[in-house]
Amino acid sequence: MREIVIHREEIYSGRIVHLSAVDVRLPNGKEAHRELIQHPGAVAIVALDEEQNVVLVSQYRLAADRIMWEIPAGTLNPGEAPLVCAERELQEEAGLFPGKLDALGGLYVAPGYTTEFIHLFIATELSESRLEMDEDEFIESKRVPFAEALDMIERGDIIDGKSIAGLFKTARRLGL
Amino acid sequence: MREIVIHREEIYSGRIVHLSAVDVRLPNGKEAHRELIQHPGAVAIVALDEEQNVVLVSQYRLAADRIMWEIPAGTLNPGEAPLVCAERELQEEAGLFPGKLDALGGLYVAPGYTTEFIHLFIATELSESRLEMDEDEFIESKRVPFAEALDMIERGDIIDGKSIAGLFKTARRLGL
Repeated sequence: MREIVIHREEIYSGRIVHLSAVDVRLPNGKEAHRELIQHPGAVAIVALDEEQNVVLVSQYRLAADRIMWEIPAGTLNPGEAPLVCAERELQEEAGLFPGKLDALGGLYVAPGYTTEFIHLFIATELSESRLEMDEDEFIESKRVPFAEALDMIERGDIIDGKSIAGLFKTARRLGL
Repeated sequence: MREIVIHREEIYSGRIVHLSAVDVRLPNGKEAHRELIQHPGAVAIVALDEEQNVVLVSQYRLAADRIMWEIPAGTLNPGEAPLVCAERELQEEAGLFPGKLDALGGLYVAPGYTTEFIHLFIATELSESRLEMDEDEFIESKRVPFAEALDMIERGDIIDGKSIAGLFKTARRLGL
């Protein structure tokens, strides 16, 4: 079932997104064309306080042309370990330091055309962050009861893939 | 919190992926650079038979360099309604015709850089397809008990974002 790459042309190398056009040999010997985004990968964090509230962040998303509620998340810096990135992003986006981070697996966001893999974490033992928040990120955060976050998915108030997956995986993992 | 587009440059127009480089004005007056993939959107289908087995498909994904288990899915053709696309894709990928399709909301796969929105559906009243399967798609399908699909997520055997979100949303909707 595998495809063999026979030609790869780099189209664009951006800050986050690197686009290649790839020709592959299919298992039946035919050739096919693929467009491939190389992405450094990312993390997303389900942060729970002691009352089982979960932290949500909202920000304007140009690609959706709307403000969206999501779990805190961010792109891996070059060479950065996912755990370190999760610790950094939760501080930058929500102003919270995670005393404990547990791996929750991960997901490919769109394996048809991007290499992006998101590492999911559950963060607990939250305390106030020692990092300054990024002044060029316009992010609001709030805490909602975990059950309310699941209701937000049901109502269509959370429509971000990693957030839906991360919240439901947490619900199952912790029996919430 | 909104960003205003002040310049947009089209970088590449491919078969599925259209890449633009966009300069925006942030709420604080500063400028920022965004890379944006325009994508036509897609559908994904949680198909359930009368014994509450769910249909999974496996295929090689170049972006992940591995064979992955996913729910059936596919990209919208120009002007195609999501419901029509779901009916077509379930036939092409799994050889099954859905007698009934119920909307299950949807999700943005990666709102930081792609416009792709996936419309989710629950398909029931399955019968054998009248469409031929695509000979250049190398896809295997199987049916597993719904609870086993949730276990596959837990074990990391399903690591595709839309599949994780679609299966959990279905579990909650139907009380499975």
